[in-house]
Amino acid sequence: MINKLCIIGIGLIGGSLARALRDIGHVREVTGYGRSVGNLRQAVELGVIDRVEVSLVDAVRNADMIVLAVPVGGMAEILDQLGPVLSTQAVVTDVGSVKGSVVTAARQALGTRFTQFVPGHPLAGSEQSGVAASTPDLFQGARVILTPEPETDAAALARVQEMWQTIGAQVATLSAADHDRILAASSHLPHMLAYCLVDMVVRHDDHRAILECAANGFRDTTRIAGSDPVMWRDICLANREALVAALRQYRTDLGALVEAIEKGDGPWLLDTFARAKHARDGLNKKN
Amino acid sequence: MINKLCIIGIGLIGGSLARALRDIGHVREVTGYGRSVGNLRQAVELGVIDRVEVSLVDAVRNADMIVLAVPVGGMAEILDQLGPVLSTQAVVTDVGSVKGSVVTAARQALGTRFTQFVPGHPLAGSEQSGVAASTPDLFQGARVILTPEPETDAAALARVQEMWQTIGAQVATLSAADHDRILAASSHLPHMLAYCLVDMVVRHDDHRAILECAANGFRDTTRIAGSDPVMWRDICLANREALVAALRQYRTDLGALVEAIEKGDGPWLLDTFARAKHARDGLNKKN
Repeated sequence: MINKLCIIGIGLIGGSLARALRDIGHVREVTGYGRSVGNLRQAVELGVIDRVEVSLVDAVRNADMIVLAVPVGGMAEILDQLGPVLSTQAVVTDVGSVKGSVVTAARQALGTRFTQFVPGHPLAGSEQSGVAASTPDLFQGARVILTPEPETDAAALARVQEMWQTIGAQVATLSAADHDRILAASSHLPHMLAYCLVDMVVRHDDHRAILECAANGFRDTTRIAGSDPVMWRDICLANREALVAALRQYRTDLGALVEAIEKGDGPWLLDTFARAKHARDGLNKKN
Repeated sequence: MINKLCIIGIGLIGGSLARALRDIGHVREVTGYGRSVGNLRQAVELGVIDRVEVSLVDAVRNADMIVLAVPVGGMAEILDQLGPVLSTQAVVTDVGSVKGSVVTAARQALGTRFTQFVPGHPLAGSEQSGVAASTPDLFQGARVILTPEPETDAAALARVQEMWQTIGAQVATLSAADHDRILAASSHLPHMLAYCLVDMVVRHDDHRAILECAANGFRDTTRIAGSDPVMWRDICLANREALVAALRQYRTDLGALVEAIEKGDGPWLLDTFARAKHARDGLNKKN
């Protein structure tokens, strides 16, 4: 049970978490803090949070669970503000898509209270953003990765784990470095491919005709190009090394594919497509 | 009204077309011809076609509409067989994803009867294949591109146009070259990107963890990697030039993106992502 939950950044993720915890009665009181007054007001109107606070000090006062749900690029600033006012009984976690940079910022900002910080990342969301898109079942069946450090307090880890499990998520732990390398391939790379594909088409002489001829394949492949640009700029900058490595590998592989098409190497193409189809079909079976 | 429809290749597209035309009573009799006996038997059992013929001559005898729905790589062979037995009263059309290569094969195989051939491509389908996946509403609201040549008979064109419109499709015409260049970007390129992404992940040391962490973004982006490998090998080989050009452009654009991430160029990333999001959001509004 959470007595007072403070969500910093009430968007799709922060809002959905608050809704889910309220729906099952796992939280007594929810306060919200953020930059956009309009968004905070909407969060109260939608019943996502009980109260808005206009200062971080007031928002986190007496909170036993603090969730940082701002874009990755805003984490360091919030952590710097949080450091001096964080009480000993609060657990802090975040929902950032990159973990190495957040862990570094938290270690620096929180000092001895860094033990109370549990880095986390729910693998859920959509191309939509903002509290209006939040929904209490977003995390039902979703995977949540926690990346505790050696200093992380075991009781704090257990509380964050329990919070996610209570609302139907499956919690796993990884090192921050493993998380960032794996997510670079499973999430960050696909987003880059989708953005790049839409941007290429937009700048094409035939862009009108191409978009008119865009059937389901194009639509599905590029759905995530509708994602929040600020969030993804931040992720690119925060996970630069792992993402660049994944993108370089992809460009190399795509080069081999181009070469096979140019040479008319039917067997190579058939092998590659069949191997990919087999793996992709396996993913369907899993969920 | 079609008196006798002959579908050559009863897969997802051929089967769905037959179902749609039967459902609205626009066809009296449907015969099927193809390579897989099991598939043809299933098509009869499912009520998709009335009768299977084991020779092409029998299948097309007295047919007033013949639809070639085999993979693009199999078109030339079928057209070569069809040439000597094609009667003057039949209209022939196809559903191939590439038009230039099919037009060339048809012109060569059909001789003076080439005027009866109306090259076509319904922009519908899914990653599924086979007659079991066929459905009568596949073309409802879908776009169908016809690419008539100067020799194409106007009455034949009108009959094919009517066939598609009757089952709810929107028909447009393009030159074969325009079709192939536009589809290279709107359809063939996204399929290559999806196949390449899954194949890269499969060969990755962390492939198990990456697939476990595959959330909706990865799933949507790669759904079409479950498409039929033979069909896509054929498309690659048949639309080689336009597809290679699109892939080369994409690799160049992706290179610029990698460079921006490496340099930490936040404004460039934000601009690019915002431009892509704007275009992608526009696509949502359109349908």
